[in-house]
Amino acid sequence: MPYISNKGLSMPESPIRKLVPYAEKAKKEGTKVIHLNIGQPDIKTPQIALDAVKNNTISVLEYSRTEGSEAYRKKLASYYAKNEIHVRAQDIIVTTGGSEALSFTMGSIADTNDEIIIPEPFYANYNGFATAMGIKVVPVISKIDDNFALPPIEEFEKLITPRTKAILICNPGNPTGYLYSRAEIKKLAAIVKKHNIFLVADEVYREFTYDGQEHYSILQEPGMDEHAIIVDSVSKRYSMCGARIGCLVSKNQEIIKTALKFAQARLSPPTYAQIASEAALETPQSYFDEVKKEYVERRNILIKELEKIDGVKIGRPQGAFYCIAELPLENSDDFAQWLLEEFRLDGETVMVAPAEGFYATEGLGLNQIRIAYVLDKDSLIRAVSILREALKTYKGQ
Amino acid sequence: MPYISNKGLSMPESPIRKLVPYAEKAKKEGTKVIHLNIGQPDIKTPQIALDAVKNNTISVLEYSRTEGSEAYRKKLASYYAKNEIHVRAQDIIVTTGGSEALSFTMGSIADTNDEIIIPEPFYANYNGFATAMGIKVVPVISKIDDNFALPPIEEFEKLITPRTKAILICNPGNPTGYLYSRAEIKKLAAIVKKHNIFLVADEVYREFTYDGQEHYSILQEPGMDEHAIIVDSVSKRYSMCGARIGCLVSKNQEIIKTALKFAQARLSPPTYAQIASEAALETPQSYFDEVKKEYVERRNILIKELEKIDGVKIGRPQGAFYCIAELPLENSDDFAQWLLEEFRLDGETVMVAPAEGFYATEGLGLNQIRIAYVLDKDSLIRAVSILREALKTYKGQ
Repeated sequence: MPYISNKGLSMPESPIRKLVPYAEKAKKEGTKVIHLNIGQPDIKTPQIALDAVKNNTISVLEYSRTEGSEAYRKKLASYYAKNEIHVRAQDIIVTTGGSEALSFTMGSIADTNDEIIIPEPFYANYNGFATAMGIKVVPVISKIDDNFALPPIEEFEKLITPRTKAILICNPGNPTGYLYSRAEIKKLAAIVKKHNIFLVADEVYREFTYDGQEHYSILQEPGMDEHAIIVDSVSKRYSMCGARIGCLVSKNQEIIKTALKFAQARLSPPTYAQIASEAALETPQSYFDEVKKEYVERRNILIKELEKIDGVKIGRPQGAFYCIAELPLENSDDFAQWLLEEFRLDGETVMVAPAEGFYATEGLGLNQIRIAYVLDKDSLIRAVSILREALKTYKGQ
Repeated sequence: MPYISNKGLSMPESPIRKLVPYAEKAKKEGTKVIHLNIGQPDIKTPQIALDAVKNNTISVLEYSRTEGSEAYRKKLASYYAKNEIHVRAQDIIVTTGGSEALSFTMGSIADTNDEIIIPEPFYANYNGFATAMGIKVVPVISKIDDNFALPPIEEFEKLITPRTKAILICNPGNPTGYLYSRAEIKKLAAIVKKHNIFLVADEVYREFTYDGQEHYSILQEPGMDEHAIIVDSVSKRYSMCGARIGCLVSKNQEIIKTALKFAQARLSPPTYAQIASEAALETPQSYFDEVKKEYVERRNILIKELEKIDGVKIGRPQGAFYCIAELPLENSDDFAQWLLEEFRLDGETVMVAPAEGFYATEGLGLNQIRIAYVLDKDSLIRAVSILREALKTYKGQ
C-alpha cells in the first residue's frame, strides 16, 4: 500500500460523521429521527434567487472570472455599504463557499507550523482547513458560564508567539450563538494592531442577531484596513447552502493579491450559483424580518424547554441559530450514539452533535452538545421532550 | 503590514494573467483580439444538461452529500463502466471541479516537502496546488521533437527519492495534446508498483482522442487498484467549465477515506451544477461524434496553417484541444505582449499563452506557445495568418 500523508491521517473527521450510520440504521428500522445536529436551515430560499437560475439563458456554461463576476462583486459592495462596511468590488474575491474563503485566507497569511488563535468552542472545520494547510490552531477557552463571551484579552496575550499570524473569530458564533459586542471587537482590534497580525472574522451569520442587538463588523472598526479579513457566505443568509458561494473581503491589497493566486489555481467559482447569489441580493427586507422572527421564536421555545430539564445548563444565544447545552452526564458522544441506537419515545428519537468536536483542548466539551434550531417549533418542542425523557432513562442505567 | 505567507508569495501566477491588462487595453482601443490562449471551449453545452437546471424544482437549496449525490455517483459509475473503467459509486468522490480532486489527492498522499514527479510541460495549475500544499513538483522533461511522448522510464527512475509519493500525468495532455499509449501506461504502472507510490492521472480530456486512437485509462491497467487515482471533470467533456464539477476516482479505499476528510471540511460540491452534471451523462453519442469531428478538423487546419510558417515547429496533438508550437524567437512572453500592444493586421491581433508557465525547469519553453483550438475554423485560419505576419515583422525589428 502506498504512503498516506500524515496530514491526511490527522485531518479531523466531522463531529457527527461517525453517528450517521446509527441514524441511518434507526431510520431504516422505522424510527423517526429529529435532527438537532445540522446547520441546514429548513427556511425557503428567496424565490428571486431560485427564479434567476430557472430563467437563465446560458448556452455555453463558461468559467466566470477567477475573482467572481464583476456584476456580482459590484452588487456585493453595495450590500456591504448598506451594512456600514465600506468596500469596493476589488476588495472582494468570490469563493466557493465560505470554506474556500477560509482556505485562501489561511494559505495567504500562514506557513507550515504557524499559529492562529481561535476562541473555543469553534466551528469544527476551522481545524480541518488548518490541518490541510499545516497550520496550528491555538485555542483560547470561552466558557458556558460567561455565555461564551470573549475571553479576557490577557488570555490572548499569553498565547501570542512569533508564530502567531492571526486571531480568528466567528461572529455571531457557530456553535455558541454568541454575538461579540462593539467593545469586544475593539479589544480584538487593539491586540491585532499591537502585535501586527490579522483579525479574521467569519461573519456568515451577520443578519441573524436577536434581542435588538446589532452586529458590529471588524471592517466597521476604524483603522483595521490592513488587519481585517472577512469570510462570508450566502449559505445561511439566504438559506442556500447548496449554492457554495462565499467571499473573502479585505481592504488589504496584499491579501487580495495573494488570495487571488490561490483562486487562480482553481479557475473560478460556480457560475449557476453566482447567478442565484447575485439575484438573492434583491431579496426584500420582509424576508429577513420574517426569518428573524421565526428564529427568535424558535430560540425562545428551545431555551424555555431546555431550562425545564434538571441539570441542563445553556448558553443563551443572541445570534446565529445554534446553542450549546451542557448535559448532566459524562460523555455526550456516547449519549448521542445511545439515543440513535437504543432510545425511542413513541417511535422517535433525536440526533445531536456532541460538542467535543468543537473544542481543540482535549477533555473540554465532553458533556456538551450543540443544538441547531433550524426546524419548526413543534419539532423543537418534541425533540426537547425526547431529550428530557432520554436523560432520565440514561441516568438511571 | 502583517505577515504575508511565503507560500502565498511563491504561489505561481497564471501564465496569461499578466497579459490580460494588455488584451483589455487593445480591446478598448477597438482592436479585435482573437484568443488562442484559453481552454474555454466555444462548443454548446448539451441541451439536456442546461434544461435539467432550468427545470429544477428546488425550494430550499440544500447542501448535497459531502461525497456528492448518491444518484449522480451511481450514474457516474455506469459512465466509467462504459469506458471500461470498473468502479463503484463508493470509489468516487464528487468534487468542485477537477481542481479540487487534485487538491484532495495531493493532500492525501503527500506531506510538506514531499515530491511528485510530473512530465513537463504540464498544466500550470499543478504547480499552484502543489505550492498551496507545500509539495515539490519534480519535472521530467518531455520534448517537442518526440511529440511530447513519455520520457524514457530511466529518467523517472533517476528522480525517484524516498520523498517521491507519486507520478502525475495528464492524458490526453494539456498543454501538449499528447495521448499516452497503452505501452506507456504499462511502463508507468510498473514503475509506481516497483516503488510503491501512486500514479495520478488527470483524464479530463478522455473523450477527445483523434486519428482512430483510443484512450487507455490507468484504471484499465490490471493490478493498479492500490496505486491509481483518477482526477476527472465535466468541464471539457460537456463544455461546462462553469459548472465546477469534477471527481476523484480510486479503488484504494484508504485514499477515498482520507480524501473524504478533506471533502468534509468544505461540506459539499455545488448542488445546481450536480443537477447539470447528472443530466449531462444522458448526452447522446451523436454530440460527442460531432464535437470530435469538429476538433479534428480544427486541429488539421491549425497544424496545416502553422506548418506554412518558416521556422515554426509543432507537436502533433492526438488528443485534447491544445498544441505547443515552437517559434523562431527567443522569448514568447515578450512576443505575446508585443502582439497585444503593438501588432495589428487590419485591426486584429491574437493572444497566445507563453509556454514558459507550463515548465518547472527554468529556461525551458521560452520560445514556445500553447494554442487552444477552441474557436471556429475561420478564426483559426485568420489567427495563424496574423501570427505569420507578426513573426515577419517581429523578426525584422
